Amino acid sequence: MTSTETEEKRSSFPTVIVLAAIVIVVLLTCVPYLVTVALAEEAAERATTDASPIFGVTLPPGYKQWELIAPAEEAAPLDELRAVVGNQTAIDAYQAGKLPFPDGTILVKRAWKRKQSSDFASATVPGAATTVQVMVKDSQKYAATGGWGFGRFINGKPVDEAQHRTCFACHEARVKNRDYVFTRLAP
Amino acid sequence: MTSTETEEKRSSFPTVIVLAAIVIVVLLTCVPYLVTVALAEEAAERATTDASPIFGVTLPPGYKQWELIAPAEEAAPLDELRAVVGNQTAIDAYQAGKLPFPDGTILVKRAWKRKQSSDFASATVPGAATTVQVMVKDSQKYAATGGWGFGRFINGKPVDEAQHRTCFACHEARVKNRDYVFTRLAP
Repeated sequence: MTSTETEEKRSSFPTVIVLAAIVIVVLLTCVPYLVTVALAEEAAERATTDASPIFGVTLPPGYKQWELIAPAEEAAPLDELRAVVGNQTAIDAYQAGKLPFPDGTILVKRAWKRKQSSDFASATVPGAATTVQVMVKDSQKYAATGGWGFGRFINGKPVDEAQHRTCFACHEARVKNRDYVFTRLAP
Repeated sequence: MTSTETEEKRSSFPTVIVLAAIVIVVLLTCVPYLVTVALAEEAAERATTDASPIFGVTLPPGYKQWELIAPAEEAAPLDELRAVVGNQTAIDAYQAGKLPFPDGTILVKRAWKRKQSSDFASATVPGAATTVQVMVKDSQKYAATGGWGFGRFINGKPVDEAQHRTCFACHEARVKNRDYVFTRLAP
């Protein structure tokens, strides 16, 4: 190595460090920002496409793990088996026989086409999943509909606004005296 | 106070302390023993009266909080709505599509008389609770019955031995290829 080469190395070395430092600073500055933007966009898109019209109700995470309130059966033409589950707020209110349900109560009704069991002649079992219907209690936000927000979902997507307009009228006409809730806790 | 009275107090004071100490020692020694005996008797009695004949299966604590596997309907003469729930071992096996079910799996079928809803003409809802039926997987203990122990309960008490003799034969005849389990996970 000549003294000239050594000279060149000496002068280029700090440049590399400076460039590396700039790259690191840019990355550390931009990456969290870009991630935040991407997540916000995803959340906004989900809120728009997966929330029910009128009420903005979404499918609550983990509802399949929730405790059973009661099964039910719906005759033709719907011809369904159903199961209503609730979050802990709902279960506590049911067990205490507390009406109206407190804010934060969420009820989810799962439904399936009735299907003859292939294993047992007298048994009817769940066929294809049909709708998932959600009721969320927020006495302020949903004051105009008895404190309840409604969501009706098929394959994870909310049905149209016209269908959502029918929810409260029916609950109000039939079970107003039970805080607009049809399902009773199975004994 | 005379000096004689003081004398008496002096001599009786240690006696009181000694007696109190004896009482405390007796209590501390006996009470835990008596509690243990009482609890053991209670547990033994429960195991005898609340365990199923043949299999010794009991109602698992907290099963009403377990996750739903599927609802079902049973035609007349039983005329029931049903819901099968499972412990976490059961749910994990169902979700993984794993057969046979691992040891520790517990399935519980709750059942109610079908009842016309008083609120909605096309709806059938749970009436009175009828039976609770339990299957417990222990491939060693229940090797003679496909690894499953059975329990059938009415009002928390097991039904008679004759009824328990019918469980496995039916499961074996119809769903041996699904590890003797009728219920499939609802989609």
